[in-house]
Amino acid sequence: MQRDLEKLTPQEARMMFRRNEWLKPTAGIASGFTQANLAILKKDLAFDFLLFCQRNPKPCPVLDVTEPGSPVPGMVAPEADIRTDIPKYRIYRHGNLEDEVTDIKAYWEDDMVAFLLGCSFTFEFPLMKNDIPVRHIEEKCNVPMFKTIIPCIPAGRFAGPLVVSMRPIPEKDLVRTVQVTSRFPAVHGAPVHIGNPAAIGIKDIFKPDFGDAVTIKEGEIPVFWACGVTPQAAAMQVRPELMITHAPGYMFITDMKEEKFGVL
Amino acid sequence: MQRDLEKLTPQEARMMFRRNEWLKPTAGIASGFTQANLAILKKDLAFDFLLFCQRNPKPCPVLDVTEPGSPVPGMVAPEADIRTDIPKYRIYRHGNLEDEVTDIKAYWEDDMVAFLLGCSFTFEFPLMKNDIPVRHIEEKCNVPMFKTIIPCIPAGRFAGPLVVSMRPIPEKDLVRTVQVTSRFPAVHGAPVHIGNPAAIGIKDIFKPDFGDAVTIKEGEIPVFWACGVTPQAAAMQVRPELMITHAPGYMFITDMKEEKFGVL
Repeated sequence: MQRDLEKLTPQEARMMFRRNEWLKPTAGIASGFTQANLAILKKDLAFDFLLFCQRNPKPCPVLDVTEPGSPVPGMVAPEADIRTDIPKYRIYRHGNLEDEVTDIKAYWEDDMVAFLLGCSFTFEFPLMKNDIPVRHIEEKCNVPMFKTIIPCIPAGRFAGPLVVSMRPIPEKDLVRTVQVTSRFPAVHGAPVHIGNPAAIGIKDIFKPDFGDAVTIKEGEIPVFWACGVTPQAAAMQVRPELMITHAPGYMFITDMKEEKFGVL
Repeated sequence: MQRDLEKLTPQEARMMFRRNEWLKPTAGIASGFTQANLAILKKDLAFDFLLFCQRNPKPCPVLDVTEPGSPVPGMVAPEADIRTDIPKYRIYRHGNLEDEVTDIKAYWEDDMVAFLLGCSFTFEFPLMKNDIPVRHIEEKCNVPMFKTIIPCIPAGRFAGPLVVSMRPIPEKDLVRTVQVTSRFPAVHGAPVHIGNPAAIGIKDIFKPDFGDAVTIKEGEIPVFWACGVTPQAAAMQVRPELMITHAPGYMFITDMKEEKFGVL
């Protein structure tokens, strides 16, 4: 990552994506500003999906929802256009990946609703600032993610298990880890479980369902957070006629400084 | 209030209301359990209303939303029936009060959605436990409420000004007041403003738009919290064909202990 990409404003970064001048993941761009997951559904599913998020705020922290048909996320980026301002999108028809594209104007319809959901990137910085290691960043891979036996609370057609991400934390840092991440409920917040993976239905901590396995060192405890894959997985099971998401790692950059989502 | 009413379980209290054996306000009944505001709308308005709440969480803290057509608030009281378990309801047609009734089975339709919203009762107890005075309780009247010049973020057909409640707080207790109420975002949480009423468009602190005026003593500062009247006022402006609410003071008693809504 070049230093000047870190220093871009969110507006400058989004204009670069809009002009298709950047077709790589967004990690490190416009440093300090919150990045978000995208899910676009048609209005007929939007109430159920919003209700699913409302009932399961830990895996589904809603940062913004557009008015039906409007591509503008007025709360977190009032000058943005959700159809062009992400480097890469995925188009799903009836739950199957149909295409990856760099803008979605050709797919946009008058009854579409875009959901921007918080992402755990945002609480990893406060961990690192507290000298708490974030293993998958150290090992330059994706965070390990697991399906659990914890059910989400269903809403209309949406249901499914809680998916969690795992970070190994030194035992001496467990209390501070809970404190630091509890401050950010809008980006998954406090852990959902500390310790024994079997207690939440995880058979092998080195065989994640999504992402990559990471090293767990002597004296480290696996700590589990609700993961943004949860709502996407629940939506896929509904097999909506059309669903559009960001491509993994290609996030929407909001105008909101990360600290703005800190409570207390 | 008789001691035994305080000690009722939420289930016992709701059964008493269901049998129409209690037709008075619910303050003090089933002490320690969270009471909630009720708003029932038809499905065609429910998405916009849920979005309005999502965008304005301080005045509109959602505790539960029923599935369309279901009278069961599954998250906060899975054994309750929202149509019978409140002592008194109000029926509004096109924004006009049509009737007050003790159950709403005759009005219930297959496409109705019930919203339960947090209520400031819940953060007044922690204030009192911290020896911070709550003036309208001392003076046995309703809390003073004011329309402000702060606009809510609109959602679909819902819009309107933020309505706030006011409690005079001794200057020495201001910091603790912010700390204590910040722990309860699900019931309006931290104040929205401290001090000068004119800064948020309030002309006369002794002439509230709703509720009663209270005494402000020497050395006390007016402190303002987002108020649950906000979403009801916004909904009235839409003049929905049919809207049902609790009668003021006649709340829904949930199974949730108040402390369960405390963060950190």
